[in-house]
Amino acid sequence: MTDQPAGTVSALLAEIADIGSDPHRGGYSRPVYSDAEHELREWFTGHAAKRGLDVETDRNGIIWAWDGTPGPDAVVTGSHLDSVPGGGAFDGPLGIASALVAFDELTTRGVSRRSRAIAVFPEEEGSRFGLACLGSQLLTGVVNPERALALKDGDGTTFAEACAAAGLDPAHVGADPESLARIGAFVELHVEQGRGLIELGEPVAVASSILGHGRWRITLRGEGNHAGATLMTDRRDPMVAAGKLLVAIQALARETPEARATVGRLEPTPGGTNVIASRVDLWVDVRHPDDVVVHAVVEQIRQAAAALAAEEGCEVSVVEESYSPTVDFDARLRDDLVKVLGGAPVLGTGAGHDAGVLKNHVRTAMLFVRNPTGVSHAPSEHVEDPDAEAGATALADSLEFLITR
Amino acid sequence: MTDQPAGTVSALLAEIADIGSDPHRGGYSRPVYSDAEHELREWFTGHAAKRGLDVETDRNGIIWAWDGTPGPDAVVTGSHLDSVPGGGAFDGPLGIASALVAFDELTTRGVSRRSRAIAVFPEEEGSRFGLACLGSQLLTGVVNPERALALKDGDGTTFAEACAAAGLDPAHVGADPESLARIGAFVELHVEQGRGLIELGEPVAVASSILGHGRWRITLRGEGNHAGATLMTDRRDPMVAAGKLLVAIQALARETPEARATVGRLEPTPGGTNVIASRVDLWVDVRHPDDVVVHAVVEQIRQAAAALAAEEGCEVSVVEESYSPTVDFDARLRDDLVKVLGGAPVLGTGAGHDAGVLKNHVRTAMLFVRNPTGVSHAPSEHVEDPDAEAGATALADSLEFLITR
Repeated sequence: MTDQPAGTVSALLAEIADIGSDPHRGGYSRPVYSDAEHELREWFTGHAAKRGLDVETDRNGIIWAWDGTPGPDAVVTGSHLDSVPGGGAFDGPLGIASALVAFDELTTRGVSRRSRAIAVFPEEEGSRFGLACLGSQLLTGVVNPERALALKDGDGTTFAEACAAAGLDPAHVGADPESLARIGAFVELHVEQGRGLIELGEPVAVASSILGHGRWRITLRGEGNHAGATLMTDRRDPMVAAGKLLVAIQALARETPEARATVGRLEPTPGGTNVIASRVDLWVDVRHPDDVVVHAVVEQIRQAAAALAAEEGCEVSVVEESYSPTVDFDARLRDDLVKVLGGAPVLGTGAGHDAGVLKNHVRTAMLFVRNPTGVSHAPSEHVEDPDAEAGATALADSLEFLITR
Repeated sequence: MTDQPAGTVSALLAEIADIGSDPHRGGYSRPVYSDAEHELREWFTGHAAKRGLDVETDRNGIIWAWDGTPGPDAVVTGSHLDSVPGGGAFDGPLGIASALVAFDELTTRGVSRRSRAIAVFPEEEGSRFGLACLGSQLLTGVVNPERALALKDGDGTTFAEACAAAGLDPAHVGADPESLARIGAFVELHVEQGRGLIELGEPVAVASSILGHGRWRITLRGEGNHAGATLMTDRRDPMVAAGKLLVAIQALARETPEARATVGRLEPTPGGTNVIASRVDLWVDVRHPDDVVVHAVVEQIRQAAAALAAEEGCEVSVVEESYSPTVDFDARLRDDLVKVLGGAPVLGTGAGHDAGVLKNHVRTAMLFVRNPTGVSHAPSEHVEDPDAEAGATALADSLEFLITR
């Protein structure tokens, strides 16, 4: 990503290629309000200022860069800059860089300065405070601010403390109907996180839907003890119960067509090599197009966890940390954009997005850009330069349609 | 542990009851060369100075508190102050506090000032740098100093860096035959980590043996990917392979009489909730009285890991991080101490100790003190006050026997 033509998506992404790179995991670790994410925010606001956009950060830490007087009925595009731990270079930043390039293109085309903005949403991944799309969920009032402010990161820092450190007033975090009312339509461009566009042989698609998805925290409690002095028969080892549950979760998801269930995070306590764990926490991410099925799978997991914990003399609790029902994007807008983009394909996604939260409040659409590895949330996530530029053009076309319709 | 009679083991332990307590895990987290362990070292050297002992810290960070001219043929007792994460109050500090009280008792009894010392060994647990009994292994030349200095803790700090920060010269870390030659006999008192003395109804036992034990790091590598956008059939998920392996390890250990196999530490990478792990590292601790059986169990685990990893399209590697063969303590000294202690019972242990390392170089014995919970490496580890005082008296009797024999 060097020596890219100035003003391209690739050139913009090349500027941030060193920010938040993770030497241990590979890829990028850019948790919300970390030094890395702050640096990305400054990079964005610098570019917005250079283009004469008016930049504001609202009570929820969402950055808005306005071209023209803010709303109502403004056309807004945006995405996020935070990442999962060890994530790829495109998940989030592709949408932000493409928005900057699309705004340049609208200026070049002389599209009238009807109010439009680029929005950057904090904590889209939920990788620091455990609740995905936290910024858009606060804006829209979907999440209770008291609950959000009490969330803790892995170091025990609360979201309230992180907000204060980022210069926000925790007392003002929460639903912001005035800010929301300025948006007439929202379009998010995002790297595709599966293999749909590879199989279709196309660079850009319009989104149809987002799978219902949620996160459940499962806590298994046994008896911590010495790894050498405790006979196998005297143990109540929650790690063995966790092992059985990992196998059961895979089996349950496989039995259910279109379901996905994943445990990517698992934390034994105390976590010593020569210590039988007293407790294991694991997080299961479950998704399915049908919300009823998501909850049925979770209920099966809950029952399996209870039975398998009992086999090991352990206890179990299961807590829902978040749930987002299946989102079907506005069908008319979707069909309009397919036409505007010359018959672009329509694709669903298993990944959550801020657009999925905004969809219940404003007319919302999404564009996906081809990812030639089909891999995301990992360093090998990729977008070819011509596809990135095609994406920015498609975004400019979509915004122009919305602005001038 | 308050209002204990001055000069008792319980009173000494009450002084350190707040040092390194772990609000998250419960119990104590006192990794070697942490602030907490340094504070415990200062507590010990203060008590040693108060008793007129000459304190020195050797090239390997072992503290020696001498009564009389150092060696040769000195009688030495000692243990450690570091802990596992979330460990109990007695594992290590009981031996140090009992040594101070036993030395007081020897003074009261007027036992001649034949050279004797209390030794405090660093990193007995291996909970910071992964290699248990690191101090005694360096002293005796069992571990190569280059290997030890390159060990890293969870934050990436090398043992060399930690030694330098603790005021040691990393260039001088390693075998110290002069220091070792000063020891004529070594006795370590330790809290029992199983249920032997509960069942025998006795407060103190003499050790017979330490089970052969080691640690193996198993790394499973798959493909990191998005938890929502990746179909179950498109996954190479090392967490599922790890789950199967956890179940298999328990089964293999259960099939082998007297074997213990434990996974207390498991780390997924990158560790995000909405990310299929690309890699899982887990550490298995395997113990058995027969060294041949330990290695046979590890070989079975290795084969199971290969087969289960392959089922999930993953790769696996297994690396031995440490191994300590079964230790049988000096039979004559053991029998002498049984007589000195009025027919105390003889017990084996599944737990490793610095005494097990020293045993190959000097005449070595161990005493165990009853633990009424039978639980160790956990907050509920316990010793009743009268048993602690009985232990200190038994230690004084043992040391007097060795000094005056």
